[in-house]
Amino acid sequence: MEVHYSADTPLQVRESKYPLQLLTENTPNGKKVQILLEELHDIYGLSWTTHLIDLETDEQKKNWFLQLNPNGISEMPFTTSQALTVWHHLGRIPVLLDVVEAETVVSIIESSAILIYLQENYDKRNVFGFDSTHEKSQAIQWLFFWHSSAPVQGHARHFMKGTAEPIPYAAQYFERAMLRIYSVLEAHLSGQHNGQSAVPREYLAGDGVGKYSIADMGTWPHVRGYRALGFSEETDMRPKFPHLLRWIDCIAARPGVQRGIDASKYDSEENPGLLVRAG
Amino acid sequence: MEVHYSADTPLQVRESKYPLQLLTENTPNGKKVQILLEELHDIYGLSWTTHLIDLETDEQKKNWFLQLNPNGISEMPFTTSQALTVWHHLGRIPVLLDVVEAETVVSIIESSAILIYLQENYDKRNVFGFDSTHEKSQAIQWLFFWHSSAPVQGHARHFMKGTAEPIPYAAQYFERAMLRIYSVLEAHLSGQHNGQSAVPREYLAGDGVGKYSIADMGTWPHVRGYRALGFSEETDMRPKFPHLLRWIDCIAARPGVQRGIDASKYDSEENPGLLVRAG
Repeated sequence: MEVHYSADTPLQVRESKYPLQLLTENTPNGKKVQILLEELHDIYGLSWTTHLIDLETDEQKKNWFLQLNPNGISEMPFTTSQALTVWHHLGRIPVLLDVVEAETVVSIIESSAILIYLQENYDKRNVFGFDSTHEKSQAIQWLFFWHSSAPVQGHARHFMKGTAEPIPYAAQYFERAMLRIYSVLEAHLSGQHNGQSAVPREYLAGDGVGKYSIADMGTWPHVRGYRALGFSEETDMRPKFPHLLRWIDCIAARPGVQRGIDASKYDSEENPGLLVRAG
Repeated sequence: MEVHYSADTPLQVRESKYPLQLLTENTPNGKKVQILLEELHDIYGLSWTTHLIDLETDEQKKNWFLQLNPNGISEMPFTTSQALTVWHHLGRIPVLLDVVEAETVVSIIESSAILIYLQENYDKRNVFGFDSTHEKSQAIQWLFFWHSSAPVQGHARHFMKGTAEPIPYAAQYFERAMLRIYSVLEAHLSGQHNGQSAVPREYLAGDGVGKYSIADMGTWPHVRGYRALGFSEETDMRPKFPHLLRWIDCIAARPGVQRGIDASKYDSEENPGLLVRAG
């Protein structure tokens, strides 16, 4: 969407050193894009400006921010602190700003759409994407699969851990929903759909065993957080989802991924110098 | 994903007249792709084979179908008929099959990813897509916005209307979640984020008032079903979401849309000749 700065848009945003600007905070959705930018830096030397948004003081509800992200509207369902935690983060960050023509700034919302935009426009050799039409589509398919699963994880966290009074039916409903989602990823990574060969896959998208791509970056930051739902590695995950655990560890080992989730860079409490506020 | 037919793959699928095959049923997710195919037929004369999948007899759980869609795994949360209704439909259809090289058949899953695939490969003049990078991304952004909202609508329907015993907290939680989602669409369509001009938008994606695109096709079939959540047009929708209602009516008037949701063509009860079953 074409951006119209408002009177309270922070000066750091108006006068960014680089045309590419990321407004983020170190949540799973923020981490997706942080990881891709760090990976693109390693390959192409890409530079951008990072602005951290303080979600706890509602910076994302200020007028200047809503002009960048129409998904910033909040109608809070409940005022328990737990529900607030779930809802504050929904759809607010990350936002990417880019300059498409002289003076024309556009904002890109929805973390998975930002991954596709950055890959298509700033990864010309398709290091994190694909040349062939059907593999490119595979990456997009898995991005959509996870994009519809992430809110389920949010609801699961709320009803399994966050309600003031336990609601067993809803807790069980969402626990099973998450286990079903893990089962789909596990079956895919196990290679059981690869016909006769059944060779385990290394990554979500791509022919054969797959290739590290935006599909993995869009899925990993949420899936690695299974402990927040009360699932344990040894009891719940390893017996049922061994290929999924292997994939989690494999992605975690990448230097670009480790920098992309580094709190000393992307958490506003540890790096308050990057915070931006309404001017 | 490259398709490996199994022993029970129906002959109609193996020996399709056209390379492009749609496996569907007349649900909101199915309708998205049915609409785009009908629209592409009107513009380009595109032809495809339609196969209807009987979800009520669990055809989507047969081995041949799971080979096409790894998101076919079901771990049913509960066995009430209402919960079954919610979960049966999840992620199973539509599936698109296409021939990318001689003899190589690929399956494309996730309704929104199918829309992108068809638009990029079968709409060369971008009648339902965009030439510019940032407008193309806009369409993808709104597809992701809705793709993460559709499961919320499913949960809302279950907890507002479908549980054996009422669960007021969960019902209210999801009712407010849906109203928040409608609010985002309403604010966007009202044009209030378009800077000084604030001219209402006609469609979700595209500069200015927007252009009818895959973003609308991916959103409309679900959003038009607000009555299934118990919301009424006059009491709930018109006072709060007038631009959203206008958009629903505008899309509904298109001939391609009307054919794309036509039960006499796409509902297996009315058109049993297109049903396919394990061979």
